[in-house]
Amino acid sequence: MNSRESGVEGLSEGLSERCKRYIARVAGLVDGFIYAKVHGDPEDIYDASLHLIRAGGKRLRPVIVVASAEALGEEAEKALPFAAAVELIHNFTLVHDDIMDRDEFRRGVPTVHKLWGEPMAIIAGDLLFAKAFEVLVDARDKGVPSQRVVEAARVLAKASSIIAEGQSMDMMFEEEEEVEVEEYMRMVYKKTGALFEAAAVLGGLTSTDEDNVLSALSAYGRNFGIAFQIRDDILGLVGDEETIGKPLYSDIREGKKTLLVIYALSKLDEDAREKIKMTLGKRDATREELEEAAELIKSSGAIDYAEKLAEYHVSQALNALKSLPSNEYRSILEELALYAAKRVK
Amino acid sequence: MNSRESGVEGLSEGLSERCKRYIARVAGLVDGFIYAKVHGDPEDIYDASLHLIRAGGKRLRPVIVVASAEALGEEAEKALPFAAAVELIHNFTLVHDDIMDRDEFRRGVPTVHKLWGEPMAIIAGDLLFAKAFEVLVDARDKGVPSQRVVEAARVLAKASSIIAEGQSMDMMFEEEEEVEVEEYMRMVYKKTGALFEAAAVLGGLTSTDEDNVLSALSAYGRNFGIAFQIRDDILGLVGDEETIGKPLYSDIREGKKTLLVIYALSKLDEDAREKIKMTLGKRDATREELEEAAELIKSSGAIDYAEKLAEYHVSQALNALKSLPSNEYRSILEELALYAAKRVK
Repeated sequence: MNSRESGVEGLSEGLSERCKRYIARVAGLVDGFIYAKVHGDPEDIYDASLHLIRAGGKRLRPVIVVASAEALGEEAEKALPFAAAVELIHNFTLVHDDIMDRDEFRRGVPTVHKLWGEPMAIIAGDLLFAKAFEVLVDARDKGVPSQRVVEAARVLAKASSIIAEGQSMDMMFEEEEEVEVEEYMRMVYKKTGALFEAAAVLGGLTSTDEDNVLSALSAYGRNFGIAFQIRDDILGLVGDEETIGKPLYSDIREGKKTLLVIYALSKLDEDAREKIKMTLGKRDATREELEEAAELIKSSGAIDYAEKLAEYHVSQALNALKSLPSNEYRSILEELALYAAKRVK
Repeated sequence: MNSRESGVEGLSEGLSERCKRYIARVAGLVDGFIYAKVHGDPEDIYDASLHLIRAGGKRLRPVIVVASAEALGEEAEKALPFAAAVELIHNFTLVHDDIMDRDEFRRGVPTVHKLWGEPMAIIAGDLLFAKAFEVLVDARDKGVPSQRVVEAARVLAKASSIIAEGQSMDMMFEEEEEVEVEEYMRMVYKKTGALFEAAAVLGGLTSTDEDNVLSALSAYGRNFGIAFQIRDDILGLVGDEETIGKPLYSDIREGKKTLLVIYALSKLDEDAREKIKMTLGKRDATREELEEAAELIKSSGAIDYAEKLAEYHVSQALNALKSLPSNEYRSILEELALYAAKRVK
């Protein structure tokens, strides 16, 4: 199934109807805002930039921005520029990641560099990056005071730097024999946690610059993002190919040191370890080789370990929310975090 | 000669001693600011990001930022965050451009992707982009009011979008048989003029948000940048290889539709046109083929035409400055614009 609609279709499992309706509403608003703002000349480069956004996606990060703002009593409308900015940054990283990882499919469609070539895909990512900051500034027109817009720009720029650090770590891990869980956690915070963190903080900044509120949102987003990425590692091994929209085992083929691989390499015997290492990063590995490596990883108990770690971070995310006002938007934030560790796509 | 120092060494020809001293001072301040702000973990990705900055460069854009601020009575110090941001954006575009154009040398050293590989070079560029916006926000600490910092972020983000549009046009022109001068001018404004324009406007924003001042600076920077890029086209054909730090004729090899090529194709006879077209974009062209194409282009009178067009834009830049207060910093801005059309590197 190629999901060409964003929002609900991306998140069909395990969410309440209320939460699904909320996501659908916010995704519609954010998409509308993005399409209204991101166009220009030459059309071709804008088509390349918008390709993955049009192909679908969960819109989870912008939903976090908007729900955080609403939890603090703001209108969704006021949070749209920040929400759109975060989604544009996310998509920029996907476009460049796909080039670096030589991935050919995402969200059930060919990746940008497969359709437009690498040079145009590099520019398409850069354009999304630039548009993110252009769009963020529109928060002025929604009544967010300049001081807090500047702070939002700082937070989003800082998160973007951290993401680049995380991506370079992820890449360098591919060359390393062994990676420690601690290093992995640092990488995962940088690659994924930092943008979820920024999303929650930006939602907060629509309403306040109080340290305790922003710190709570920061802890919520950071832990949410880490749990989300751990689940991503799990889905790469046990997920349903059609549901997730990209080939299974691509992490193994690309030699990614996922949490599961790290755990398995630390627990299995020499023989099993060698078998996994032989397939890790082997670009032309056969389906059988990949499946064998996957089975070995599973046999180590890695999935149970990873699920527990994801659940721990979800509980940290939920704890952080307790200091926010209790309302329906806070419950949505809670439900989303719980979803992070359970999702099937 | 590999210039490993920025500033003066980059600009040794045709500038007054006073102007050279000014550039050296500002380049020192800006480099210091950049090195103090751009570092982190993993070191490797920061080394890749800073590689071209360390290799040299003219620091012309940050000098425009600082001189524009000083012309309006501000301290250089106050303009450093904006100046550093503009230089970081410039270097980000170079890192990605070199990947796209498959260039192997710049500033007399191997390009980032030659040394670190393409994936790391993509991330290195992204990191510079992110750092540019992080650093820009530091203008708060230098006493620039939030309102003007937000406006600066908008201007720099908008310029970055326009640059991406310009790069995609430049790339698409390679595939086109014929390009009109008008299209070329639009591309050159986007690819190069927009960042010079932003540099001058950001300098202005350290001091004021008066429309007439910012418009004058905008016209100055825009015309300066266009003249600068036309001169770049000329240097690609008649420059001294060692002085410019990269191979001569790479524009021809890459199939770039420079102003000179466009003019020559519109003036020469069928036979000469065909010869030029056969070599344009031929990646494995021999030195002899490249030289023959270059000679044909020169024979069309393209250089004289391009020089006149560059001089026209310099005169427009100088005109725009007349509305600014007359002082030593304004004269430096004038001298820099005159240099744009005359420089030998």
